[in-house]
Amino acid sequence: LQLALAEKLEELKQRDELIDELEKELDEKDQLIINLKNQLEKYKSAVIVSINAAVQSHALDTL
Amino acid sequence: LQLALAEKLEELKQRDELIDELEKELDEKDQLIINLKNQLEKYKSAVIVSINAAVQSHALDTL
Repeated sequence: LQLALAEKLEELKQRDELIDELEKELDEKDQLIINLKNQLEKYKSAVIVSINAAVQSHALDTL
Repeated sequence: LQLALAEKLEELKQRDELIDELEKELDEKDQLIINLKNQLEKYKSAVIVSINAAVQSHALDTL
């Protein structure tokens, strides 16, 4: 029984290490998601600016 | 000792559930990252197309 308990304690330690690792991975992915979302916002703004410029340029052409 | 062993077994079960949950979260975040990267690629292409069009239009203007 003592041996079984020692084994389970070791298993628990390993699980806790795995949990720490998974949580670290989650944090890293969260950071990546934030960066990607920020980049996406920049590109969206650039596309909108560009569309507005094209519309304005077309409007001038057709005056 | 029997009780301690039962307790550790219960703790192990809880850790395993938490690990399953964390792995599910990781999978979801991976999917989100793939989606964001795809969207980003689309916007990048749109910006490049738009810049090319502007450059071409400018070249025509200055002929």
